[in-house]
Amino acid sequence: MARFAIGVDLGGTNLRVAAIAYDGRLLEKLTLGTEVGRGRDAVIDEMCGAIAGLQLKLGAGLDGIGIGVPGIIDMDRGMLRESPNLPGWDDYPVHTEIERRLGAPVILENDANAAALGETWLGAARGFDHMCMITLGTGVGGGIVLDGKIWHGMNGMAGELGHVTVDADGPRCNCGNQGCLEQYASATAVMRMAREKIGESEALKALASTPRLTARTVYELAKSGDRAAHAIFERVGWALGIGIGSMVNALNLPMYVIGGGVASSWDLFAPAMFEQLQARSFVYDATKPGETTGAGKVTLVTRAQLGSDAGLYGAARLGFGKAEALQPSI
Amino acid sequence: MARFAIGVDLGGTNLRVAAIAYDGRLLEKLTLGTEVGRGRDAVIDEMCGAIAGLQLKLGAGLDGIGIGVPGIIDMDRGMLRESPNLPGWDDYPVHTEIERRLGAPVILENDANAAALGETWLGAARGFDHMCMITLGTGVGGGIVLDGKIWHGMNGMAGELGHVTVDADGPRCNCGNQGCLEQYASATAVMRMAREKIGESEALKALASTPRLTARTVYELAKSGDRAAHAIFERVGWALGIGIGSMVNALNLPMYVIGGGVASSWDLFAPAMFEQLQARSFVYDATKPGETTGAGKVTLVTRAQLGSDAGLYGAARLGFGKAEALQPSI
Repeated sequence: MARFAIGVDLGGTNLRVAAIAYDGRLLEKLTLGTEVGRGRDAVIDEMCGAIAGLQLKLGAGLDGIGIGVPGIIDMDRGMLRESPNLPGWDDYPVHTEIERRLGAPVILENDANAAALGETWLGAARGFDHMCMITLGTGVGGGIVLDGKIWHGMNGMAGELGHVTVDADGPRCNCGNQGCLEQYASATAVMRMAREKIGESEALKALASTPRLTARTVYELAKSGDRAAHAIFERVGWALGIGIGSMVNALNLPMYVIGGGVASSWDLFAPAMFEQLQARSFVYDATKPGETTGAGKVTLVTRAQLGSDAGLYGAARLGFGKAEALQPSI
Repeated sequence: MARFAIGVDLGGTNLRVAAIAYDGRLLEKLTLGTEVGRGRDAVIDEMCGAIAGLQLKLGAGLDGIGIGVPGIIDMDRGMLRESPNLPGWDDYPVHTEIERRLGAPVILENDANAAALGETWLGAARGFDHMCMITLGTGVGGGIVLDGKIWHGMNGMAGELGHVTVDADGPRCNCGNQGCLEQYASATAVMRMAREKIGESEALKALASTPRLTARTVYELAKSGDRAAHAIFERVGWALGIGIGSMVNALNLPMYVIGGGVASSWDLFAPAMFEQLQARSFVYDATKPGETTGAGKVTLVTRAQLGSDAGLYGAARLGFGKAEALQPSI
C-alpha cells in the first residue's frame, strides 16, 4: 500500500486531477470534462467522484489532497478569499466539504504557489531551498519559496509578482496599478500588443481580426519571420528582465523559474530578458553564471521543467500531510 | 560587569562609535574626528583607540563589535566585497585586524541592513519578526528582516531596494539601471530634481546655484511655500509608493520602515507615497490599516524611530555574539 497524494489543478477552464506517489512518480492523471464555469457544486461533485475512483484503484494509501486555485487563499481559515475566475467559491469552505466527503485532509493553495513548489520538488529548482517562480499565463502569477517553504507573507498574499511595477506610466492593469509585469508578459498582454501593432504588419493585422488570435499564434507568426510579432516577444523579455531584476536586487535568490504557457516562447523573449537583467540588475550582473562569485553561487534564471503539470505536482506535495504548509509564513 | 557591545557606523563622512547595553540602553556615543576619507589605517587606528577607551571605562563585559559599512559584505569571508565610498577597504580583512587588536569578535554588516536590525530591535519595527527597511540618504539602501534575521540572500547582496525599478525609462543610475528608486528618493536625487526645476521657481534657482543646495534646504524651501520645491517631494513620495508597492505585492510583510536623512521630509512626501501605494498595490489596498483583514493583520508603512542611530544600534546588536548573524541566509 504505497503512499500517494492527490493534486488538483482548478484552472480557468478545465479541472485536472493527478495521483502522485511519495517519490514523485505520476500514478494517474485525469482531465475532467467539467467546465469550471458550470459552477462550484458540479465541480466539487465531479472532483470528489474522480478522487474516489482513484482511491478505489490505488488502494488506501491516500495521504491528502492539495488543490491549486487561481486566487488568494486566506491562510488562517484555509478558504478562498478572492477569486475573480471562480465565482461562487469565495468564502465557501471547500476544504471542509471535500474532507467530509473523502475523509482525507485537503489543502488549498494559490496556483502559482503550487507551481513554485512543484518545480522545487521535481522540476527546474530541484535541490534549491530558495527560489522564485513566475508563471506566464492568462495573467502573470508568482510564488516565492524560502527555506523550502512557500513564503505566504502575513495574509497569504505574497508572491504577486505579476503586479510588480515595471514601468510607472505603462498600461493600466485591473489590479489598479499601471505598467505591471502582467501588462507585458501575460498571454493577454501578448494579444493586446498584437492588436496595437496591426498597423505594422499585414500578417498581424489579418491574424488579429480572427478568433485564432492567441499568444501561441502570435508566437508562430514571429517564428515565421514577422518583425512586428517578434518585437512583441522582445517586449515580453524586456519586462521580465526589469521585473526579475528588481526581485534579484531585493532578494538575491539563487533560482528564478519561468513557467506557464507563454514560457514556451522562451527562445524569442529570453535574449531581451537576459540583456535587461544584466544591464539593470547589478546584483545579477555580479552573480550571473560565469562570474567568479563567492563559493560559486550564481543567479540562475531558467525555464520551468514540468510544464502545465507543475501546479499538480506542487498541490500533491502539499497533500502529503504537510501540516506546516497550512500555516501562513508569518 | 554588565554585558555590552560596540556598534560602529562607518559612514561616508564621520566615524561613530557607541557602546550599547544588552537591554538596548545607550551607554556611550562618540563621534570621532577622523574623516573616513583619510584612509583605512587612520580610521582603524582611531576606531580601535576609541573602543579600547570604552572598554577601560565600562569594564570587561564587551561581547562583540558590529561595524556597519556602506558596501556589500562577502558573507562567507566576512569582508567588504565592494564599497565605492571606502577606497582601500575592499578585500581587506578588517574584522581579523580589529579582532587581533581588541580581542573581541567583530562582525561587518551593510549599513542599511544594520539599520533594519536596529529598528527591529529598538525602533519602529520593535516586536515585528518580519520587516523591510528603506534608508533615504546620499543613496537609497534597504534591508529585509525575515524571522528576526537579516535576509542576506545567497551572496549577501539582498536588500538593494534602492535599485528596484520604479520607471523603466527614468533617469540613469550608476548601478546600470534606469529609473531606480534611488533616482527619485535619495538626497542626491532631491538635489538633481532641484537643479532640473530652476526654470520653475526663482527661489529654487537662487538656491541651486549655491553650495547651500542640499535635500534639507530644498525641504525648507518647500515648507516655505515654494511649489516647485514641493513638487520634488511629491515625486519622492510617488517613487516610494511605487517601489514599496512592488515589495508589498511580492512579500506581503507587515512593516516597512523609512529612515535616513530624507525621511525627515516625511510630512511632504508621505501623502503622495500613500496615494500611490493604495492605487498601485492591491495587496496594500486590501491590508491597509482600517481594512478588516484576517486576524487584524495590516501593512504598516512608517517612519524610522532611531534616526541616524539605527545603524549603530543594529551593529551593536550584531556584536552581541550572534554567531548566526555571521552566516549568510542561504
